Amino acid sequence: MRQAEDDHASPPVMNGAQSLVRTLAGAGVEVCFANPGTSEMHFVAALDSEPGVRPILGLFEGAVTGMADGYGRMAGKPACTLLHLGPGLANGLANLHNARRANSPVVNIVGDHATYHAQYDAPLTSDVAGFARPVSAWIQSSPSSRTVAADGARAVQAALAPPGQIATLILPADTAWNAAEGPAPPLPRPQPGLASDAAIDRVAKALRGARRPALLLRGESLQPAALATAGRIAAATGARLLCGTFAPRVARGAGRVPVEPIPYFAEQMVEFLRDLDVVALVGEKPPVAFFAYPGKPSLGLPDTCEVHYLAHPHEDGPAALLALAEALKAPREGLAPAPLDLPEAPSGDRFNHYAIGALIARRLPEGAIVSDEGATSGGGTLAASVTAAPHDWLRLTGGSIGQGIPLATGAAVAAPHRKVVCLQGDGGAMYTLQALWTQARERLDVTTVIFANRAYAILNVELSRVGALNPGPKALSMLDLTHPELDFVKLAQGMGVEASRAATLAEFDAQFASAMAQTGPRLIEAVL
Amino acid sequence: MRQAEDDHASPPVMNGAQSLVRTLAGAGVEVCFANPGTSEMHFVAALDSEPGVRPILGLFEGAVTGMADGYGRMAGKPACTLLHLGPGLANGLANLHNARRANSPVVNIVGDHATYHAQYDAPLTSDVAGFARPVSAWIQSSPSSRTVAADGARAVQAALAPPGQIATLILPADTAWNAAEGPAPPLPRPQPGLASDAAIDRVAKALRGARRPALLLRGESLQPAALATAGRIAAATGARLLCGTFAPRVARGAGRVPVEPIPYFAEQMVEFLRDLDVVALVGEKPPVAFFAYPGKPSLGLPDTCEVHYLAHPHEDGPAALLALAEALKAPREGLAPAPLDLPEAPSGDRFNHYAIGALIARRLPEGAIVSDEGATSGGGTLAASVTAAPHDWLRLTGGSIGQGIPLATGAAVAAPHRKVVCLQGDGGAMYTLQALWTQARERLDVTTVIFANRAYAILNVELSRVGALNPGPKALSMLDLTHPELDFVKLAQGMGVEASRAATLAEFDAQFASAMAQTGPRLIEAVL
Repeated sequence: MRQAEDDHASPPVMNGAQSLVRTLAGAGVEVCFANPGTSEMHFVAALDSEPGVRPILGLFEGAVTGMADGYGRMAGKPACTLLHLGPGLANGLANLHNARRANSPVVNIVGDHATYHAQYDAPLTSDVAGFARPVSAWIQSSPSSRTVAADGARAVQAALAPPGQIATLILPADTAWNAAEGPAPPLPRPQPGLASDAAIDRVAKALRGARRPALLLRGESLQPAALATAGRIAAATGARLLCGTFAPRVARGAGRVPVEPIPYFAEQMVEFLRDLDVVALVGEKPPVAFFAYPGKPSLGLPDTCEVHYLAHPHEDGPAALLALAEALKAPREGLAPAPLDLPEAPSGDRFNHYAIGALIARRLPEGAIVSDEGATSGGGTLAASVTAAPHDWLRLTGGSIGQGIPLATGAAVAAPHRKVVCLQGDGGAMYTLQALWTQARERLDVTTVIFANRAYAILNVELSRVGALNPGPKALSMLDLTHPELDFVKLAQGMGVEASRAATLAEFDAQFASAMAQTGPRLIEAVL
Repeated sequence: MRQAEDDHASPPVMNGAQSLVRTLAGAGVEVCFANPGTSEMHFVAALDSEPGVRPILGLFEGAVTGMADGYGRMAGKPACTLLHLGPGLANGLANLHNARRANSPVVNIVGDHATYHAQYDAPLTSDVAGFARPVSAWIQSSPSSRTVAADGARAVQAALAPPGQIATLILPADTAWNAAEGPAPPLPRPQPGLASDAAIDRVAKALRGARRPALLLRGESLQPAALATAGRIAAATGARLLCGTFAPRVARGAGRVPVEPIPYFAEQMVEFLRDLDVVALVGEKPPVAFFAYPGKPSLGLPDTCEVHYLAHPHEDGPAALLALAEALKAPREGLAPAPLDLPEAPSGDRFNHYAIGALIARRLPEGAIVSDEGATSGGGTLAASVTAAPHDWLRLTGGSIGQGIPLATGAAVAAPHRKVVCLQGDGGAMYTLQALWTQARERLDVTTVIFANRAYAILNVELSRVGALNPGPKALSMLDLTHPELDFVKLAQGMGVEASRAATLAEFDAQFASAMAQTGPRLIEAVL
């Protein structure tokens, strides 16, 4: 390094942070979701010198990483975060776990102490790489301001490796503030692999001989064109079209060939899959139970079912589906897409998630994005919206609650002209509620529906399902959110988001209609 | 295991979770701060069979672990958490980082998938031990319901190893639900080591020959009796009595020998310490800068200063101080303790943290506990309270903001008859605000003062200090909390906590006086 530095007698063009920001912009990073601290101040300052990167502040790192996930799922571009040392990264890990399970392409820039300062074990010193490891496919601590730009280009490339993964670049403060040469050119975007002819032949043969086959789809294969191809294969073979319970993104509604999501509970999953004799996996793994339960199965498919990969997750699922359709000589017209068929307005006055779901489905605008962390209350809308206006549905991929609101926020950044509807259970809402403030600051077009059942309702179900019988008052109090009741209207208003409370179907419908008719953030607390 | 299980033809006495809960109770665990999920349902159910353990629900794991830290600092007993798999642990890591830096004795019980289910890589599967490693001195995944009780006893012992550390016990679901023998007896509480005679002699000799010595104290050595001993040494040698900027707990106010905290900023630290020629460390390390800055020092003490350990952190600091006082033939009466001398009521109408600090110090009740995450606004109260009524002062040990409110909550659980005052910056408040709900549910006697300067004010200072000159609008927007302004009154009310806003000294004084005169949670938003 000494020699290299001596070669630069003239003032440096820029510092490491500036070279990194410009490199990220050149590699396709358009947004940086940020919660910075002292060690990131040079990176923050460098944002002003790069018009191509829009910084978006989150008030908590779990909100920041959840936004990156939502952006990554919808934008098809690298989602960038800026986090403050090990503990800042740690606060974002749960939603990075969800993002990893969603195969979102996320680049974390994590500031750290100056290289020479780490040895002193100052209060914020920690094992940053250790925190990053469980969620990151690629980790590097950048040792020099002269090479940090190139490290940044590599980080973006790593995040974009199909089907998308988490890359974490640790940025020591002196790597940011010392002199750099300039930005590094982008590295080639990795392309998905192609499924082998052998895999296509094998699956074609298996489907032809199957009595009750299915395609289990994920990733790009759940987007409209690939779904149409899958519908051709279904028409040719009688295959059911399935997706995982928590598929990252599914194109649904009118005009899209519908897929059936696998149910959540283990015994329902087994029942749902019990007839199958051949399953072809397209970017997905064999289905497993979300949790184990005493005496219940972990695996979803019957032992007798043949399972074949048509395309691995890193391979091009839509291309493999097309090749399979050709091999099967599938008809040009496959399964009919879903019609536009809005549900009836709910009769009666029962204010539950089924009735609310019908009201939402009736008013869901074309092109809406639904962020579903409705937990025990999300199913009503899921069922009611199969024939609603066309939309994308995003789910809680990693099972770590506290994703819904940030995910909706990031999706709204990625798709500013589409309405985002967030279905959010009250328990999960409290993990990353801070994302509402970002919605207000950025005037994002998100309507959040809080299903306020005043409980960790799923745990009331699970407590008996796991065989913990006769729970006493202390156990039940751990699942109860009534003492005191949360007031989500005040919580939202406290962060600058317009909010209202609905306790009847008429109130909900009027408030939801109003929210769909305007743009900007809104929150409706549906008191169940 | 098969053989062992066959030996138990009669119904099992209890399951693994029950054996663990009883073991924890027997080992001194009285409170379990919890945010459970499905995999912890047997542990939750087991809480009802053990009257000795009080579960306290937090709505987010960062609140849960911060409460454990506050409890651990004040109770002198093991602080237990219950967390939901890897992502639940991950949400709690930042405050576990702070707890590690505070040497709080924390036992994390982290539920995980059943042992046989982990292989299937279900959505919530993650590297739990990997998440735990950067903060934990002891980690074990308990492989069997037959031995989990013994593992629990060992976890408590590990957490109590002086000066206190983090122990993480991973509890697979089947380890919780399968049959167990019964509870395990507690293991002996580890005792602190004794400083060697050689260390005491060396320090005595160094202090006698010193021109400008100091004692740098931490841990138990910052409690009243040890401070009095340190005051004797100071009287005999002229030593200054110092503590770290972010000492976990300091006994202060009337009747306590005062110690000087080392200032936060590197150049102030160096100036503060520049005269010293001998420093004796009592449970503390040599002071270092919180962050590195271009061209500024990382180390606090001058190169010429001799540094000696009187007692390492795991050794008995108060006993070492007594032995040192004897070796020095120190007088029985040392430095005078601080008198009770309340500050004047602030004159004028400038509503800043100095004036607010004087108002707080005047009304601080005897025995109060102060949780200080006031950041740029905490200094006024710190300075004004040196001669206030006797109190304990708790600080942000690991520098990861979002500790103040949970820490106050846990301290209030540990010391139910003492008033807790939380000094909280607005930026940091938004990380773990959920702890307010626990204060309301448990009716804890905490008054939270939000210093609402509508900014990450420290970063405005740091942005120029790190040499990032001429920040532009994008950079400045990352430090700004005004668009929209947060309304902490609504946020607190939304979680069931009585709240008010003060914009003048008279308003603040009236509200703070009212809060001190009642018990139960209160929040005052001081709009600076």
